[in-house]
Amino acid sequence: MLREDLPLPLCVLRDSALERNITRFQSFAESSGVLLCPHAKTSMAPALFGRQLAAGCWGLTFATCAQVEVARRHRVPRVFYANQLVGAPDVRYVCGELRRDPGFDFYCLVDSAAGVRLLAERVARSDPGRPLQVLVEGGLAGGRCGVREVGTAIEVAEAVRAAGPRLALAGVEGFEGLVQNRDPGRREADVREFLAFLARIAAALDARGLFGTEEVLVSAGGSAFYDLVTEELAALSLGRPHRVVLRSGCYLTQDHGLYDHLLEDIHRRTGSADPALEPALEVWAQVLSVPEPGLVILSAGRRDFGQEAGNPIALTHVRLGTTECRSLRESGWRMAAASDQHAHMTAPPGHGVEVGDLVALGPSHPCTTFDKWREIHLVDDDYNVIETIATYF
Amino acid sequence: MLREDLPLPLCVLRDSALERNITRFQSFAESSGVLLCPHAKTSMAPALFGRQLAAGCWGLTFATCAQVEVARRHRVPRVFYANQLVGAPDVRYVCGELRRDPGFDFYCLVDSAAGVRLLAERVARSDPGRPLQVLVEGGLAGGRCGVREVGTAIEVAEAVRAAGPRLALAGVEGFEGLVQNRDPGRREADVREFLAFLARIAAALDARGLFGTEEVLVSAGGSAFYDLVTEELAALSLGRPHRVVLRSGCYLTQDHGLYDHLLEDIHRRTGSADPALEPALEVWAQVLSVPEPGLVILSAGRRDFGQEAGNPIALTHVRLGTTECRSLRESGWRMAAASDQHAHMTAPPGHGVEVGDLVALGPSHPCTTFDKWREIHLVDDDYNVIETIATYF
Repeated sequence: MLREDLPLPLCVLRDSALERNITRFQSFAESSGVLLCPHAKTSMAPALFGRQLAAGCWGLTFATCAQVEVARRHRVPRVFYANQLVGAPDVRYVCGELRRDPGFDFYCLVDSAAGVRLLAERVARSDPGRPLQVLVEGGLAGGRCGVREVGTAIEVAEAVRAAGPRLALAGVEGFEGLVQNRDPGRREADVREFLAFLARIAAALDARGLFGTEEVLVSAGGSAFYDLVTEELAALSLGRPHRVVLRSGCYLTQDHGLYDHLLEDIHRRTGSADPALEPALEVWAQVLSVPEPGLVILSAGRRDFGQEAGNPIALTHVRLGTTECRSLRESGWRMAAASDQHAHMTAPPGHGVEVGDLVALGPSHPCTTFDKWREIHLVDDDYNVIETIATYF
Repeated sequence: MLREDLPLPLCVLRDSALERNITRFQSFAESSGVLLCPHAKTSMAPALFGRQLAAGCWGLTFATCAQVEVARRHRVPRVFYANQLVGAPDVRYVCGELRRDPGFDFYCLVDSAAGVRLLAERVARSDPGRPLQVLVEGGLAGGRCGVREVGTAIEVAEAVRAAGPRLALAGVEGFEGLVQNRDPGRREADVREFLAFLARIAAALDARGLFGTEEVLVSAGGSAFYDLVTEELAALSLGRPHRVVLRSGCYLTQDHGLYDHLLEDIHRRTGSADPALEPALEVWAQVLSVPEPGLVILSAGRRDFGQEAGNPIALTHVRLGTTECRSLRESGWRMAAASDQHAHMTAPPGHGVEVGDLVALGPSHPCTTFDKWREIHLVDDDYNVIETIATYF
């Protein structure tokens, strides 16, 4: 890649870092006694789904039915649909898959009695041949989907029971990650409080005999607070066995911003360097112009990387015609702006960069960089391309 | 589409509005006496390239070589590459196309003598069989690519002459749209000053006999200030004939935010309702949850629409099971937040929206919504799908 064999910009994954992340996070989940069901909407790359499943993850998590269709085309056997299943074509598709493949294990969420009734009606119209497994979603006030009160959770669970045998209540779910938008000083307490709310829901439904599966799933965990999730939810005591399902997705590649900082927080909270994750995702661009002494214009823009969790940082500079990588990390480079197809970098005097040179950028939040690319190149430590994988967004 | 025949979310273009926009903007350009070469990176939809070319546009503009490859695979005969052409594979590709197809007309930009020398070297290595036509790019201070001084433009043009017959100087180019980021009160003056700068460059290169083509192209014009571009640049007087090339791209679909406001500015400046453009692009989603009285969660998120020029607005509500469209425009709805796959809408009391209902969103800045979709549905005025077109991002 450093020899300009491929057109730029391009998106690369450092294969060795990726492999280490997959192995280390799987071990972390196993040693924490939780099931890992990574959110695979992060990459939407079936080649990576395959690696995660081969490493031993319990299933994969998705957020839209279009994503589930991609997963099923690539033979993913167990799908945790971390969303409300609402659309008529979506319910029809899932029921068809359940009927077609007895080995397909599927879970989705419900958060209102009205939603349960609509779902049950639609399931009835395209008989899946077995109950559709649902979890009650608990939500944060002012947040996204999910019941706000234990009482509502009970109503929803009763609606599920009333919809039997179309539906079966398999557990309780929540996404604590929205707490990220709150005051940093209160985040840990807010996450613990939210997890305690999920635990209260689970206990209330358990006490009323509303669960319809032998084992109860209790699922939470984005990529920011999974240490707290494993700590709080594993301690739960119910009348029947339960398993904690962690859905973190960003461990796959980590990043150079948001999740890098959040991982530091996790290591600080746990007093451990586990899991040791490394950023693996980079966007490489070419210098198109140095129109002013401290301004470098690159051939990648907001159509090539996400910005909603902060701009990418400058990682590496390679002089045109060489393959020597010079780190830009502590060099004072900054992305001043991005347009659709350009990044505007400010660089300190004597930056030594010229038209044609290559510059690598390290994005923050992998999800919004992955989705900019239809092809991603896996590279070895010398940036030789060893595999090119497709994404399906 | 209103009958849930297709999985949601989805992106639609209202065909009638699209057709009117194409016709009206083409007429506007023709009656202004300028050549229209729309920036086609907006849609990257060859089906729409075809409509624009059929309406009579002079050529199409692109910003990356990957985009040019898509255009060429779809037989676009004239490409204005509104960017520096730098990468070795990119130069090789363009030269190969020029050699292969004598009917292919191609223009790209240069903004430094170093860049010209690199380009000339690379052109020499893959002989295109005729001179590569380049325009000197003029840039805004603190902006993107482009020379900041007339003196530099002359140096660059002399480097082009020195690189003859590999390169031929065909004109002068600039992008005034970056002025958008500046103080609104100064924008018009700043744009006029920038266009005057481009005119000074053209005059200086003309006086020195540095243009190498019979007709000189002078090109500017995003979608925000094309009235000023036609006014300022048509008046230019050079020693040889010149044509003004306008590159506006967003007229195709307009939008419900940024370009809607900028069009109002254009109408105010010109004292005319021409061109009369209508927003044609909409993202349709389903209500997944109403978890709190004033909060509606939709099944489309930042992977489905752009936000960098402001959040989409709520356009339309359709009650599940009906096809009656109720306008939400003046109803007080607001997008409070978006996550990857969800929009969090605040809605006033009595919003009357339930799980399963459909809601249409109107994005701001079409470019960053188009690029979220691999397929876009063209719909008639009743939202029946009449064609599904592919995008190539």
